[in-house]
Amino acid sequence: VKGEFAAISAIRELLPVPPAEVGIWIGDDSASVEVGEGRYLLLAADTVVAGVHADLELTGLDDLGWKAVAASVSDIAAMGGDPGYALVTVAGPAGTDIHLLYEGIAAAAGSFGCPVVGGDLTNARDLVVTVAVTGWCTRPVARSGARPGDEIWVTGPLGGSAAGLRLLAADAGAARDGPDEDACRRHARPIPRLAAGRAARILGATAMIDVSDGLAADLNHVAEASGVGLSLDAVPVHPAANRDEALGGGEDFELAFCVPAGVDVPGAFAGLDTPIRLGRCTSEPTERSLGGRPLPLAGWEHEWRTN
Amino acid sequence: VKGEFAAISAIRELLPVPPAEVGIWIGDDSASVEVGEGRYLLLAADTVVAGVHADLELTGLDDLGWKAVAASVSDIAAMGGDPGYALVTVAGPAGTDIHLLYEGIAAAAGSFGCPVVGGDLTNARDLVVTVAVTGWCTRPVARSGARPGDEIWVTGPLGGSAAGLRLLAADAGAARDGPDEDACRRHARPIPRLAAGRAARILGATAMIDVSDGLAADLNHVAEASGVGLSLDAVPVHPAANRDEALGGGEDFELAFCVPAGVDVPGAFAGLDTPIRLGRCTSEPTERSLGGRPLPLAGWEHEWRTN
Repeated sequence: VKGEFAAISAIRELLPVPPAEVGIWIGDDSASVEVGEGRYLLLAADTVVAGVHADLELTGLDDLGWKAVAASVSDIAAMGGDPGYALVTVAGPAGTDIHLLYEGIAAAAGSFGCPVVGGDLTNARDLVVTVAVTGWCTRPVARSGARPGDEIWVTGPLGGSAAGLRLLAADAGAARDGPDEDACRRHARPIPRLAAGRAARILGATAMIDVSDGLAADLNHVAEASGVGLSLDAVPVHPAANRDEALGGGEDFELAFCVPAGVDVPGAFAGLDTPIRLGRCTSEPTERSLGGRPLPLAGWEHEWRTN
Repeated sequence: VKGEFAAISAIRELLPVPPAEVGIWIGDDSASVEVGEGRYLLLAADTVVAGVHADLELTGLDDLGWKAVAASVSDIAAMGGDPGYALVTVAGPAGTDIHLLYEGIAAAAGSFGCPVVGGDLTNARDLVVTVAVTGWCTRPVARSGARPGDEIWVTGPLGGSAAGLRLLAADAGAARDGPDEDACRRHARPIPRLAAGRAARILGATAMIDVSDGLAADLNHVAEASGVGLSLDAVPVHPAANRDEALGGGEDFELAFCVPAGVDVPGAFAGLDTPIRLGRCTSEPTERSLGGRPLPLAGWEHEWRTN
């Protein structure tokens, strides 16, 4: 067994199945615990490592803090939930500029309405920032509910974050405007799509995921969890990005969701950016196609070896 | 500003004050959120780093996983709460034995009744395991409620974990029994005092903390948060430990708590290990004494520099 996704499957097998009130657990964006009639507590955690998820020569320590909060809050958005509270744990070298790091953490927590209430501080060689968040939801939208015939939508164009990283790596300090500036902003300070996640839940989304590993990899997660195939017509590419970045670049944090055919998605998103239709779910569970050709499944995956 | 505790104070200043329902936040063992009449959601997170909190030449990867869960669940115990659910995030080298690590995590989660429901897996040079936990409580016991005249108690003898580390470092593979065996078990597989925490809350504890940094340092946290002095008569030393280990060794995970004078603590703990009286809180906020002499405040503190 090799790779992050295989390791996550192995971990799910190693752990006891949680009690019945835990309707959604390992393998989705957030876990979901029913805490009352139609009231669900969402729980999610994400880790950002300097040098792996963020290059501190290209973006700031404040941006790293922002991204750690954004990645976890995006897991709440991907269930259609509202954020609750954040716990921030920082392991890192003694000289880490805590002030700058927490400037970004505080700015993100304020922007997304997810106050930091606690955490931990410890030493390690790499800077490792883990953000655990709670959320609330009346109907958590899992990855597993898509049905053949459902339409697949995404909340915005893709590849912007990967394009931003490419642009910053070429010239970190360049003055930019237009799509390039937007791409760099998407890389440094991504914004979870909380309002869009709520809108998708309300209009009856059957499955949802945030685009964190790359569109193809993330839609593949939905297809595997739901037991459906994917037939995509086209992929919306961010104006600063190329097609590979749109399909395989991670950390866009747009939401991809499935809805029964015929639902008026643009109408339900009035006042928000209009989602873009990607294609539909099919009854052939192994199908992964884009414009009638095989969908390339490359995406971001950490290295893990398990026996 | 220097050191972990100063950095935590600085972080508390950098973050906006959370909303009113968050009665307890950074600076206590858990954060507490009132989610209904007399119903509090507790949130805590702890990070264990290989080479910092656990020496993998002395104890196993499964023990490290156990300790990460135990440390976080102990933060729930220290509020007098019941554990809810755990999120486990692992950052580490690709070759880390996930199976062995999660064996310890699953065993601890099962033992303490705190199911793992999610998390994250990513790469870093050091193995960094963060466990975020939820808990429930009807009256969270903060560090800040001690009053002059309150008696100070602890749920068991101290220094066992530090003694266990010393014994393992001298000869990791030695056969042991009696107090030495117990000390090594306390170091490798500490057990949070959940039942004792509940008993202390029920009998009316005014303040509580888990002994994770070392008794003197942790009681100092209570005294500072409560604005009281400390007058200790004696410190119960684990039979395998010495006095320095009892005062300064961290990770015992016993609970120290304050109660109004006259409360029948042994009676309220019938069926549990009988707590040991340490001394009392005084009205002189700077007093830190043990047997009439100054209390040495050395304890575990991570290195942080902040400007």
